Amino acid sequence: MKIPPVKGTRDFYPPEMAVRNWMIDGWKKVSVRNGFEEYDGPIFEYLKMFQIKSGDEIVEQLFSLQDRGGRDLAIRPEITPTLARMVNQQINSLPRPIKWFSVPRLCRAERPQKGRLREFFQWNIDIIGVDSSVADAELIFTTIDYLRMVGLTPKDIQIRISSRKLLAAVLLSVGISEDDLDVLYALLDKKTKLPAETFEQMLLEKVGEQAKADEISSFMAVASIDEIGQAVTMDSDIERAVVELETVFASLAVMGVAEYCVFDPSIVRGLAYYTGIVFEVHGATGELRAIAGGGRYDNLLRDFGGPAISATGMGMGDCVLELLLREKGLLDSQLGKRRLDYFVTFADKLFGGTMYEVAAELRSRGYSANFSYKLGGLSKQLKEASAQNAAKCIIIGQEFAESNQLAIKDMTTGEQELVDYGAFLSGLEPRDT
Amino acid sequence: MKIPPVKGTRDFYPPEMAVRNWMIDGWKKVSVRNGFEEYDGPIFEYLKMFQIKSGDEIVEQLFSLQDRGGRDLAIRPEITPTLARMVNQQINSLPRPIKWFSVPRLCRAERPQKGRLREFFQWNIDIIGVDSSVADAELIFTTIDYLRMVGLTPKDIQIRISSRKLLAAVLLSVGISEDDLDVLYALLDKKTKLPAETFEQMLLEKVGEQAKADEISSFMAVASIDEIGQAVTMDSDIERAVVELETVFASLAVMGVAEYCVFDPSIVRGLAYYTGIVFEVHGATGELRAIAGGGRYDNLLRDFGGPAISATGMGMGDCVLELLLREKGLLDSQLGKRRLDYFVTFADKLFGGTMYEVAAELRSRGYSANFSYKLGGLSKQLKEASAQNAAKCIIIGQEFAESNQLAIKDMTTGEQELVDYGAFLSGLEPRDT
Repeated sequence: MKIPPVKGTRDFYPPEMAVRNWMIDGWKKVSVRNGFEEYDGPIFEYLKMFQIKSGDEIVEQLFSLQDRGGRDLAIRPEITPTLARMVNQQINSLPRPIKWFSVPRLCRAERPQKGRLREFFQWNIDIIGVDSSVADAELIFTTIDYLRMVGLTPKDIQIRISSRKLLAAVLLSVGISEDDLDVLYALLDKKTKLPAETFEQMLLEKVGEQAKADEISSFMAVASIDEIGQAVTMDSDIERAVVELETVFASLAVMGVAEYCVFDPSIVRGLAYYTGIVFEVHGATGELRAIAGGGRYDNLLRDFGGPAISATGMGMGDCVLELLLREKGLLDSQLGKRRLDYFVTFADKLFGGTMYEVAAELRSRGYSANFSYKLGGLSKQLKEASAQNAAKCIIIGQEFAESNQLAIKDMTTGEQELVDYGAFLSGLEPRDT
Repeated sequence: MKIPPVKGTRDFYPPEMAVRNWMIDGWKKVSVRNGFEEYDGPIFEYLKMFQIKSGDEIVEQLFSLQDRGGRDLAIRPEITPTLARMVNQQINSLPRPIKWFSVPRLCRAERPQKGRLREFFQWNIDIIGVDSSVADAELIFTTIDYLRMVGLTPKDIQIRISSRKLLAAVLLSVGISEDDLDVLYALLDKKTKLPAETFEQMLLEKVGEQAKADEISSFMAVASIDEIGQAVTMDSDIERAVVELETVFASLAVMGVAEYCVFDPSIVRGLAYYTGIVFEVHGATGELRAIAGGGRYDNLLRDFGGPAISATGMGMGDCVLELLLREKGLLDSQLGKRRLDYFVTFADKLFGGTMYEVAAELRSRGYSANFSYKLGGLSKQLKEASAQNAAKCIIIGQEFAESNQLAIKDMTTGEQELVDYGAFLSGLEPRDT
């Protein structure tokens, strides 16, 4: 009976697994050096957890299931609700600030397409309990720290930064009512994905008056923070939001990553829970979907039944990133090839048992070792060693019976030397075991 | 709105995550040094994948779901069917032998209890394409290589080894028909879990005759391979199976792990797909469930629509292992504490910007660094550094403005020295970034 894999999922054979491990190891390394600690939650939660704040698109794409007690569950489509739940559960005992990262496996019942699969991995970093915009800057720095480490330059990627606070202030100053903000965010978030005319028409329908629509459009088209004053009538809320944005850009300059960052008022973010600085990472050519996105969500913990504690976070999926890295030729060049420390062979079948013994000794001392199962001639065994990219071969032959000596062959130079077995073992550099 | 986690799942706060990472890193390290390569599959597969060969207990415990097209899926309760599917899909291009490992997240809708959760991680190692029993010995060695590495001795754990081939030969020689074998395996697997009388009674019901039941019971009670001949009437099939078992034990002796291993004919394994050597790892006190189990399954690839290729595998879950390691005091002692390379502080608010700059420089050079968000006095910042277990503190003060110098404080010795900022940066040992 032959059963295929489910569409939109991936099989990670060793070569694909090496890519995934390389990417995730990089995310972990950069998280740790930026002072984040790792957490994770369960792969499924109660369905309603994801219906509170995740936004319509995500709710539509939930993989829901029932347990045997008939309770409604869902495979997690994002980890932020779990983070909010976990932090709320231990809010009184967790040392603050909470700087946490995670690399969850997530599932969304999407139509599989380029850069979008039904199962993927997402790097998440979050800082909870810090009001200061330096936390937002730090998240953006950490994001860039990774992207720069894997070789992406300001020519390849751009961090587009805006502020929900600024957008809200502008919309309110234009005369939009507080209650209409969420609906308008959802529309404005689609600006770059819709034809210009369609967008203008939908915007006019939503706001009612051409003058309002024009002022919003003119704000959305602003090219730098300095130009905001020309596009909208400044008030104190807008002023405060502008100062905060300027502070973030100043921090990013101090952190040495200014050249990756631009102000872009068209960045809104689809999710409903953002409240302040928002940002997205895009390839410079703009052909692919966003590589990463994030922002401040100061009300989310409260929405999940906890106290009002400020928070800011970033998420980066593996699919679009992999496409971009492949496009730039940055993937294969950085992937380490599989390498075996030793391949153990025998020159005579008499020494088959010794071969297992030597391999076991090497392995338990922390060295990777293999041997052939085929019990063939030495040249065939050496061929298998090459195929497995072994650095050295150990050859057990007559000298072992006579004087307990092994031949060690360097597979790069082809040089071979005889060593005493005991001296060889005790001479092995200690490995972390 | 406060929503709890689902019963039987775990939240991995940083301390729990550190345990999980330590365990999984150990599994990965031992797999690699024993010559295995990592793979993984999707978290869900078509439901029917798990209905073919997984055994009734697992089928009953499936978390099943439907995608939006109404297709029946299930979260994976084990990874072996996925392994069979993946190997079959690329059978003609994969270099052999296939020595693969994986650390899948698995879900089973069990009643949560000690050592059994509804979501867990399982180390899997498999060797595909090797008929020789040295592959079985190697799997057992690799299993012990890990358990020994984390400090478990033959006083703590025992590998109990038997053979389905031997059991089948014994049952056939007693007069059980081929068709009844699977049902009998399921019963015999429960021997140690049932009261002796209940087992004897159920066995008699299944086999019909007291003499048959007695011979089976007498075989199941054999204490060493040598005694098999006294318990059952030997024939050539039994003889062959005994020789194979003896060969496995001889290989394990050569590999230096004999003292962990015993022959135990009561090891049957619940899963339907085993065909040869089978084994389980148990704590010496026998109070906990099996820590690991595995065996040869030569027909599984064929059952999944592929060619008849031999295979042998092992699975070890994280839950029982963690209980055992805690019981033995082996967990906390081996867990590395979180350590921060640098905590960057300022002696004057004037240098707040420099603090971010220095932290960013350290991070992008591969060193973990944090700073305080509170903008408080130096002593408060140093306290935060201690709380985060920082190895060194960098203090930015007047000397920085005057002569570009930083004070570096060793948090263990308390010693402090002034260094030139540029010289400090260029003097940092290169880290893998």
